[in-house]
Amino acid sequence: MNEKMQFRDPGSSALLTDLYQLTMLQTYYERGMTDTAAFELFFRRLPKTRNFLVAAGLEQLLEFLENLAFLPDELEWLATQGFPRAFLDQLARLRFTGDVQAMPEGTVFFPNEPIVRVVAPLPQAQLAETRLMNILHFQTLIASKAARIVLHAPDKLLVDFGLRRAHGAEAGLYAARAAYLAGMTGTATVLAGPRYGIPVFGTMAHSFIQAHDSETEAFERFARSHPDNATLLIDTYDTEAAARKLVQLAPGLAQDGIRVRAVRLDSGDLAEHAHQVRRILDAGGLGEVKIFASSGLDELAVQQLLAVQHAPIDGFGIGSNLDTSHDAPSLDCAYKLQEYAGVARRKRSEGKATWPGRKQVLRRYTASGHMAGDLLALEDEGGDGEPLLRPAMHNGQRVQPADDLLQARERCRGDLQRLPQPLRALEPAAAYPVQMSDALQRLAAEVDRRQAAAAAG
Amino acid sequence: MNEKMQFRDPGSSALLTDLYQLTMLQTYYERGMTDTAAFELFFRRLPKTRNFLVAAGLEQLLEFLENLAFLPDELEWLATQGFPRAFLDQLARLRFTGDVQAMPEGTVFFPNEPIVRVVAPLPQAQLAETRLMNILHFQTLIASKAARIVLHAPDKLLVDFGLRRAHGAEAGLYAARAAYLAGMTGTATVLAGPRYGIPVFGTMAHSFIQAHDSETEAFERFARSHPDNATLLIDTYDTEAAARKLVQLAPGLAQDGIRVRAVRLDSGDLAEHAHQVRRILDAGGLGEVKIFASSGLDELAVQQLLAVQHAPIDGFGIGSNLDTSHDAPSLDCAYKLQEYAGVARRKRSEGKATWPGRKQVLRRYTASGHMAGDLLALEDEGGDGEPLLRPAMHNGQRVQPADDLLQARERCRGDLQRLPQPLRALEPAAAYPVQMSDALQRLAAEVDRRQAAAAAG
Repeated sequence: MNEKMQFRDPGSSALLTDLYQLTMLQTYYERGMTDTAAFELFFRRLPKTRNFLVAAGLEQLLEFLENLAFLPDELEWLATQGFPRAFLDQLARLRFTGDVQAMPEGTVFFPNEPIVRVVAPLPQAQLAETRLMNILHFQTLIASKAARIVLHAPDKLLVDFGLRRAHGAEAGLYAARAAYLAGMTGTATVLAGPRYGIPVFGTMAHSFIQAHDSETEAFERFARSHPDNATLLIDTYDTEAAARKLVQLAPGLAQDGIRVRAVRLDSGDLAEHAHQVRRILDAGGLGEVKIFASSGLDELAVQQLLAVQHAPIDGFGIGSNLDTSHDAPSLDCAYKLQEYAGVARRKRSEGKATWPGRKQVLRRYTASGHMAGDLLALEDEGGDGEPLLRPAMHNGQRVQPADDLLQARERCRGDLQRLPQPLRALEPAAAYPVQMSDALQRLAAEVDRRQAAAAAG
Repeated sequence: MNEKMQFRDPGSSALLTDLYQLTMLQTYYERGMTDTAAFELFFRRLPKTRNFLVAAGLEQLLEFLENLAFLPDELEWLATQGFPRAFLDQLARLRFTGDVQAMPEGTVFFPNEPIVRVVAPLPQAQLAETRLMNILHFQTLIASKAARIVLHAPDKLLVDFGLRRAHGAEAGLYAARAAYLAGMTGTATVLAGPRYGIPVFGTMAHSFIQAHDSETEAFERFARSHPDNATLLIDTYDTEAAARKLVQLAPGLAQDGIRVRAVRLDSGDLAEHAHQVRRILDAGGLGEVKIFASSGLDELAVQQLLAVQHAPIDGFGIGSNLDTSHDAPSLDCAYKLQEYAGVARRKRSEGKATWPGRKQVLRRYTASGHMAGDLLALEDEGGDGEPLLRPAMHNGQRVQPADDLLQARERCRGDLQRLPQPLRALEPAAAYPVQMSDALQRLAAEVDRRQAAAAAG
């Protein structure tokens, strides 16, 4: 074990990759296979519980590519694994000098559409694969889940509560970012504030109540510490009884200018409790105190509470189900070689064939501004529609400042408005139309003929 | 956004926490509530697809507690959020000075059993909650999933392939660690080598084949670069045809002392391809070439391939389904206040009540050495059975060097052997017996009576 490496951010290490990238790179360098390669990242199909996906994570990908480099202690460790010195010398010089085309973050997209293309000398484009997928897959996964919540709880306070059961530190941070990008209001994860400028929200835990001998005392102490923004957790013992205690307590607090902002429900029948608590608070003159709910929620539960049970709930904390994308914790995506040394390529594995060449996605809209269908075309083919892939990096440098998170959030908001109505439903809808251009289909047939010859060789 | 914080490992930041920890701490300090608190982490119930869990992550938790501190730039950011200076001064001095009792990593455990107890001044024990759960929940999740694979593929090469779809950088690293702890052979994630001393394995990607005009040339080049350990991916175009190419190629390679170690199947009917490829290789004198399989595998697919289809497969790469624990991507765990200022506490929320006080888990074994049942008892109660919780930290210092990863792996291997046979199945089994001691049940009733009075107040 190399102790010096213990304290670096694992996400910034060039060793956060699959070993096969390095074994392949060794051969590429030994054989001089450093011509230009074009790889594209796309998603093969949607889970049953997704009608669309939301692109997210490009900013972190560009940071990764800008800083990609093997450090001396990393190379020394590789030397202990038997990699030849000549290869390690090449790795020591490796930097990302290629181009990136990408859908801007917040773009809604569909299966088979590339969301990122990397065009670079083969070793660089190959090496990028693992961390590129690790970043974009996860943020896209979470943004796509969060968008479903946002669509079905407009105008509600929606807070990411998932850090504790997110899959590690970076998952918690990235989930906060992706959820905010998709339109949620903020997160409970403090570090997402200074890192990404995301609004941070907090309430209190049951332990706070339990550490006091009296629930009323716990409420009063917390409210006096946080006179402008206290949210009191009221389900530790008896939810409605706790709401009545707050009604008793409020006049004394008000004399000192203190207003409790909200109460939080975290167990039991949330709709029933919300109705009861709303009545108790309103009758007690606390009509302005909001009701916030949490406890194993997801988009289906939120929709049920709002659209079916008409629960008077003003905000939701969504935790594990969001941060782990519980119903679909991974998506079927792939980063595939589509062109090398000027020649289009296509994988033909059973059930996993890909579309060859450098591609563009052209989106058409209806007169009312809704998405009407996408065309998957060759990059230089032209055609009607808005091109969704745009230059993000040229020769290893950003083409322009990437969208900031607020711009990405605004783009997502717009794209969600432009979604065809059936795709906004939580239930599975008929697939959005994505057609392959004639030129793309011709190229695929050509590649098949050429590769059939190669496979025979 | 604070640019200085951009490059630190998010997992080591004291701000990687829920905001409510800080709002509660403010009140605790303002009210002098710094008496000793005891919190325990336990899992409420098992997913349908788990008959037991495997404790993992303690080493990373202890590192986190040893290094817990707010840095100046973090405190400055909190000041911008309106936290009072007096509180921030207290945070600046905060270090973890408490005790930790824990099940050693690799221990098999069951619902309601605490796997970690933190005993510390209330603010410290409270602040630990978020990251403690974030670390232990995820590693336990993955170790518990991996153990099911290990149980049903003994003597096979089992490699974690999941980094690309793991939920961020730390998830990929931790998954590699937890899978190895549970008995898998190694990982494709390079960084897990220097970080944790885990064996690292690699093959090749389809892009390697595609970048060559001839599949045979791709095989030969890779084998010559990696003369001792090449694994060739043979499904890019036609799996059986590729196996025959290898048979043609092998004699020429053998003349130069090169032996291909294995072929990898990554699509189609893996059992059918494995049978066919085995026949082709054996007939071609390549009986020593192993067959390695990947492609959306999980423990059910592995069991089906081995026990039902008798596929001649020597090793498996398990990716997304392992690293995301796809069938159960989160577990229902909680870190709850069980005692404060010498008084036992109990949460009574609907469906979420907890067992009060500081507890020990006592495990009995049958004469043949299998687990016979656990007793959840008060810490100082004594009783028959092996106590599973052991001192890990005292006054903020490790009690002794923690188990290293190999010791944890050995403990897990032993515990899996001691599992009652029905719990080893992939199908749901009757619950393992976990009883509550009489003294624990009496304490719970006492706490209920006392807290009923408090709730009235």
